[in-house]
Amino acid sequence: MANYILTLKCADGPGIIHAITTGLLDVSANILEQEQYSDTDSGLFFLRTRFETSEELETVLASAAAHTHHLDASLRIRRESDIPRVLIMVSQYDHCLVDLLYRWRIHELPVDIVGVVSNHETCREITESHGLPFDYLPLTPESKSVQEARLLEIVEQRGVGLVVLARYMQILSDDFCRGMAGRVINIHHSLLPGFKGAKPYHQAYARGVKLIGATAHFVTGDLDEGPIIEQQVARVTHADTADALAEIGRDVERLVLARAVHLFAEDRVFLNNKRTVVFG
Amino acid sequence: MANYILTLKCADGPGIIHAITTGLLDVSANILEQEQYSDTDSGLFFLRTRFETSEELETVLASAAAHTHHLDASLRIRRESDIPRVLIMVSQYDHCLVDLLYRWRIHELPVDIVGVVSNHETCREITESHGLPFDYLPLTPESKSVQEARLLEIVEQRGVGLVVLARYMQILSDDFCRGMAGRVINIHHSLLPGFKGAKPYHQAYARGVKLIGATAHFVTGDLDEGPIIEQQVARVTHADTADALAEIGRDVERLVLARAVHLFAEDRVFLNNKRTVVFG
Amino acid sequence: MANYILTLKCADGPGIIHAITTGLLDVSANILEQEQYSDTDSGLFFLRTRFETSEELETVLASAAAHTHHLDASLRIRRESDIPRVLIMVSQYDHCLVDLLYRWRIHELPVDIVGVVSNHETCREITESHGLPFDYLPLTPESKSVQEARLLEIVEQRGVGLVVLARYMQILSDDFCRGMAGRVINIHHSLLPGFKGAKPYHQAYARGVKLIGATAHFVTGDLDEGPIIEQQVARVTHADTADALAEIGRDVERLVLARAVHLFAEDRVFLNNKRTVVFG
Amino acid sequence: MANYILTLKCADGPGIIHAITTGLLDVSANILEQEQYSDTDSGLFFLRTRFETSEELETVLASAAAHTHHLDASLRIRRESDIPRVLIMVSQYDHCLVDLLYRWRIHELPVDIVGVVSNHETCREITESHGLPFDYLPLTPESKSVQEARLLEIVEQRGVGLVVLARYMQILSDDFCRGMAGRVINIHHSLLPGFKGAKPYHQAYARGVKLIGATAHFVTGDLDEGPIIEQQVARVTHADTADALAEIGRDVERLVLARAVHLFAEDRVFLNNKRTVVFG
Repeated sequence: MANYILTLKCADGPGIIHAITTGLLDVSANILEQEQYSDTDSGLFFLRTRFETSEELETVLASAAAHTHHLDASLRIRRESDIPRVLIMVSQYDHCLVDLLYRWRIHELPVDIVGVVSNHETCREITESHGLPFDYLPLTPESKSVQEARLLEIVEQRGVGLVVLARYMQILSDDFCRGMAGRVINIHHSLLPGFKGAKPYHQAYARGVKLIGATAHFVTGDLDEGPIIEQQVARVTHADTADALAEIGRDVERLVLARAVHLFAEDRVFLNNKRTVVFG
Repeated sequence: MANYILTLKCADGPGIIHAITTGLLDVSANILEQEQYSDTDSGLFFLRTRFETSEELETVLASAAAHTHHLDASLRIRRESDIPRVLIMVSQYDHCLVDLLYRWRIHELPVDIVGVVSNHETCREITESHGLPFDYLPLTPESKSVQEARLLEIVEQRGVGLVVLARYMQILSDDFCRGMAGRVINIHHSLLPGFKGAKPYHQAYARGVKLIGATAHFVTGDLDEGPIIEQQVARVTHADTADALAEIGRDVERLVLARAVHLFAEDRVFLNNKRTVVFG
Repeated sequence: MANYILTLKCADGPGIIHAITTGLLDVSANILEQEQYSDTDSGLFFLRTRFETSEELETVLASAAAHTHHLDASLRIRRESDIPRVLIMVSQYDHCLVDLLYRWRIHELPVDIVGVVSNHETCREITESHGLPFDYLPLTPESKSVQEARLLEIVEQRGVGLVVLARYMQILSDDFCRGMAGRVINIHHSLLPGFKGAKPYHQAYARGVKLIGATAHFVTGDLDEGPIIEQQVARVTHADTADALAEIGRDVERLVLARAVHLFAEDRVFLNNKRTVVFG
Repeated sequence: MANYILTLKCADGPGIIHAITTGLLDVSANILEQEQYSDTDSGLFFLRTRFETSEELETVLASAAAHTHHLDASLRIRRESDIPRVLIMVSQYDHCLVDLLYRWRIHELPVDIVGVVSNHETCREITESHGLPFDYLPLTPESKSVQEARLLEIVEQRGVGLVVLARYMQILSDDFCRGMAGRVINIHHSLLPGFKGAKPYHQAYARGVKLIGATAHFVTGDLDEGPIIEQQVARVTHADTADALAEIGRDVERLVLARAVHLFAEDRVFLNNKRTVVFG
């Protein structure tokens, strides 16, 4: 017996769950978890099923496809053990990187980390001490397109399914964002859309907010506007300086990013135009 | 078209979702929401489906029953508009009562409140100002069984589907609890199992906790041990007296009880031995 | 013996606490609570002291003033029992109003509510059932200045120390805001600065946020930009419609506004330029 | 100029703040932060002041002592830069250890970590990679008193001011606890007093709670009953297994323990009989 995860996205309508479960019953699958959502606004239907069966992936895929081909659906099935290959990008702040590496090391995060890319040398040691390759891709206005080409090469060569921007302070090109749509997650250190752009903790301090937060979102060409995956907050007071906000914020950033990566790694996150569907 | 809510609980096994969806497809139902859960420990399967169809309730029931009779399931289907009839019991603290009445008045809570029962006269005015009957059932050791008989009479006569103990400070008999199993919700003013019994805020103060909470749970003969439906907390400090904890606690109690009643009213809460399954 | 609350705001420097406590010791005061804060940015010092003494208010004031006159401070002392007189303004949504009235009725909020003003008749009954005057001040572009004059008259005649905008959907004039600076609290139904302006829950839905919130702030001429007093959040999911966000938001709004009014009523809130100092 | 932290605990009464501030004014100190609390139950007064002055520690101490000797107070003043020396004890779970080491490395935690002691070899590598001594003190019923003697030796030789039990799974002797009262902090993986003893996440699962938490507390001879310093929670559902609760719990444990150590390191935590006073 092996465990599988199936995800499906299509135009909503009657009979979809029945079609899928017929396809699964035909391969004697036992459903372990299932979530679905019909979005009235977009008219889209989203489904995630985790099931077990003794059949092979190809057989399962064929059965599911046969029963859903009329739906013109985006259908995907994978073995649960075929976990996503993840590339982390980072600049100088290493708290999110260190946190992800720890969770990976103790097998809490169901991903394979295949390397770290940075525009600084700062995180080389921590990366290599985990037995991972570290690629230093410094950025100048002239080198940007060359480096992105190198980045895409790494993504392709290592079979990367998810790029995680763990406080990577450079903006990726529109082309890159489009090409990797739905496969790049960023952590923004504010509760979007509250404080876009640079130095959000300084903005938060100046505005005197009583809560700060962090937002994990898919990266699109439109910076700080990508579909939101996860957000959390922490309480602050008038006595907290912008530096104190940043310190408190680090804990929130780590939790939010790790949570978003975990959700993605289990195929729980769907793009729904400018929003997401998250089966938490 | 009418909306329906179907709930099902049975021994887990393959084909259950398929069976249900076949039954629903046969009456041209369109599934709006569906949640299910397989409990590995108890071996039980739980499902809730909200769907729309132009067929009558009897037709829908017949189709669902026909396709699931082999499951020996506990199956229930109701029109979404057939909201539960609720009886509230209260003693002297009225904050939960006032809160429930308000949410009912603005149609936030999908229930029909059919009356308030109390062992004190304190809440008569607020009850009657909402056009609801108020039954004063004072309790003495001698009168207890007589009053419970009266209570059961009210429950029966008014078709009560849920009794809410909104800070009702008397213990109901084992017989009553058994007879009404899964249909009586209590709010306990602590984060069970932390502080059972009387004066939990005084216990919390003495222990110097940094968080207080409230617990909504089904009532069983074993006081403070019924299956938990919902819990929330609030932060407190050394400077908060037991009275201050009680004040802060009132907000938590109101939110937790209202949430539990709301979940129950939408058939989102299932008993799973000593635990619950809550499709939130 | 009587309890007093002293607040002081002045330029920071050495010896301030010593000066105050000398003044209090001279009238045999026993300090019950004291909080202070030095703001490095603004160079301002803020202090709140709650104390008890058998001396009269005039004697206490004279002693405190004598020991602090060199500070050129904004100093205020009041009997704790001289609670602020509050005027509530509301439009049609009554959840914040009902909540404030309840907390006032059970003596949870240390304020005297002296009336409700509205541009609609909707809340007349709930107001009058609490034995409070209800003033209907409908607004047209022409009547605005006349109605604000009437409002100021009410504020003056009833000795109002705080105006609470409990979902009052009209914009007050710059003149009014300036004249009442630091004495008008508004509840905004978003986590400012996230979603300014109208229909913030619709904005939140469109942006697909995972947390919604509410903000209580002082009203200034610059709408949605006044100093923030309190903020709280609630978790939401992709499945929550804009209406559901509004329902969840009502609970947050009530808690946040009540908390802000409570803090103000105990003289715990200070203006610090565009921010506040809150001794919570 | 240097920064100092003063803490004082004594029987409550009038004039204490005045006495302290007189003593500080005499050495031209400028108060940066001050918090105080009078506990009505215990009749105790607690104060923490952070101030700056150009005088030496001895001069400051002499002045403060001179003005407070009539109070029979427990008085302590230290340079802010004389941060506490911390010894960490751990068994096999390393998530709290790794977290504390990271916060120490980036200078977030104002402590000097002077070593790690364990009854297992598991954490030797991570410890030594941070350039810290690792002492392996395996425990058998026979060796316990010998090992505790060795532990006390380490504490004494390295000038340890705080011992942190970062998931150390052995019970320390009554003698040790008494001798180190107020200087040993433990992280218990439940929201005490909810689930004392072993396997609290299994207990939480069996009880079906909707919130799990962690508690940092001072260690006393009475296990799981020491004064609570900090508590936090996370939300869980029926679908979370005991293992999932443990995973979610690890994040809470790390945050709670780091927060408690941070508070202690800044002299913000006072023992108040069975409770604590925490100036957060």
